[in-house]
Amino acid sequence: MDEFDIISRLFGPLASHDAARSLADDAAVFDVPAGYHGVVSTDALVSGVHFPADASGDIVAQRALGCALSDLAAMGATPAGCLLTLGIGPSWDEPFLTQFSHSFGAGLTAFKVALWGGDTVYAPTPFVSICVHGVGEAAKVISRAGARSGDAVFVSGVIGDGYLGLKDYQNQETSADMTAYISPQPQLELGQVLAGVASACIDISDGLAADLDHICHASGVSMHIDAAAVPLSAAGHAFANNQTALATLLTSGDDYQLAFCVPPNDVVRVDAIARDTGVRITRIGTVIAPVSGGFTAHLLDDAGDEMTLANRGYRHF
Amino acid sequence: MDEFDIISRLFGPLASHDAARSLADDAAVFDVPAGYHGVVSTDALVSGVHFPADASGDIVAQRALGCALSDLAAMGATPAGCLLTLGIGPSWDEPFLTQFSHSFGAGLTAFKVALWGGDTVYAPTPFVSICVHGVGEAAKVISRAGARSGDAVFVSGVIGDGYLGLKDYQNQETSADMTAYISPQPQLELGQVLAGVASACIDISDGLAADLDHICHASGVSMHIDAAAVPLSAAGHAFANNQTALATLLTSGDDYQLAFCVPPNDVVRVDAIARDTGVRITRIGTVIAPVSGGFTAHLLDDAGDEMTLANRGYRHF
Repeated sequence: MDEFDIISRLFGPLASHDAARSLADDAAVFDVPAGYHGVVSTDALVSGVHFPADASGDIVAQRALGCALSDLAAMGATPAGCLLTLGIGPSWDEPFLTQFSHSFGAGLTAFKVALWGGDTVYAPTPFVSICVHGVGEAAKVISRAGARSGDAVFVSGVIGDGYLGLKDYQNQETSADMTAYISPQPQLELGQVLAGVASACIDISDGLAADLDHICHASGVSMHIDAAAVPLSAAGHAFANNQTALATLLTSGDDYQLAFCVPPNDVVRVDAIARDTGVRITRIGTVIAPVSGGFTAHLLDDAGDEMTLANRGYRHF
Repeated sequence: MDEFDIISRLFGPLASHDAARSLADDAAVFDVPAGYHGVVSTDALVSGVHFPADASGDIVAQRALGCALSDLAAMGATPAGCLLTLGIGPSWDEPFLTQFSHSFGAGLTAFKVALWGGDTVYAPTPFVSICVHGVGEAAKVISRAGARSGDAVFVSGVIGDGYLGLKDYQNQETSADMTAYISPQPQLELGQVLAGVASACIDISDGLAADLDHICHASGVSMHIDAAAVPLSAAGHAFANNQTALATLLTSGDDYQLAFCVPPNDVVRVDAIARDTGVRITRIGTVIAPVSGGFTAHLLDDAGDEMTLANRGYRHF
């Protein structure tokens, strides 16, 4: 298949939205309704770096779309459309691309996102880059910068299953927590409900500690996090039987859960949000004034001492 | 430099627009004015494929931004912001990235585009992907699909200098036409003036023949193109001293000029457009009804016979 076959046979059928202009134009054309902001984010995943070089088309599609949409979830935005860039290398043959396009199409349907366009190029090391567009009510788009001392810190779902899932995947073991790695589920509905409630929000992609630090930096605050309060799955509890193992789960990323802060007066609303969305929400700490000028999430053990962390999260290089 | 150094030291200073939120959020936030459409396109360039692996940061930045903006020019859109994705490999060291960021920043200023955000990842084969956003008056955004039989076909600037520039660059010869390759200038102002006048438009990235074919396909028409009328530079004329060499220039791409169609009644307006924008505009042919069901631009020689073309343009694979 050449470039035009791939586009017309595999991706053309997915691009039925008007904005895509049948993938026949230089650019996609879209609207943002009055009273809303456009929200846009882009995420690139590289073969052998962000997924194993022999990962199937399914897994690459599900991870790429899930990770990209997770950024919209953290902003409280509702997805609208996306642009898909494929850097196709020698190992991405027709069966791979066919599987990729089927999984990608299923994801578009599940998350109600239109394929607006993209680019298809040759690349010796394959990669996929997805630029996702959404909209958010102008007054309610969430940022990382609004956390204030005294706010409560919450996290959705469980933490660490992204790491355990990758490990199981690499060991070719099938497990329930593998889903968190193979097919990350962006917390879109939760993010949308948090818009107007959360003072700050981020999705856990690099690692809980590193991502909470991002909120601290952007907001000019610090945090006290009760490490024992961080929710783990059964597999997570089994793995985290010592402080070093627990530290690994809290700094490994790939969870695509939301960590968010809520002002004291709104904390009472969180239970109803958990019930309405069906998402587990756990309070893990409190925002405090910056500690000696540093903007850091301090992860505290049961004795109230700061945990020793070999690192705080994934670093690209 | 690690990921965060690169972002904060090299690209943070370029991201001064509100939409970028100081590059501290998961996504950028932007507005589209009432009465306008949002227009978005993305272009990826891979090291060793779309530019030589030893190309300097200058050239990579100028080519990536120029190529991406050229798609907005073809839609008649006015650029607003962009997302920059860098796949940084071992060869992209600090001097390379510093040079890249300076050139990229100069391009943002020259073309009045804000840096809204992006992604920075490790990639064994380096790449750059730029997603550009613009706006266009809702009633005037140009597509490839509006060409009708009888429309005149025009092209801006000269054709073939992208090819000659690449050749000179590869041979380490300095020449005037090298600029077309090293630093493509998107015809943004021309595209904006053509909005509401041109029935169809495309930028010449793959090659004149292949790109005119794209208009033919999208519009359901064919074209007669007078090959001898296609404007060449002095270097282009010197190179095209036989039909095979001329065919090379007409099928090689990287020109980033605009090819566009104008309905018969509006052809009189084109002279004034050329004068007002200072861009050379040349009529090269006429849109005709599809020839025996095919949607093709027929490049005719002086005798009116179809030229022999080894291919019609660049193919990614």
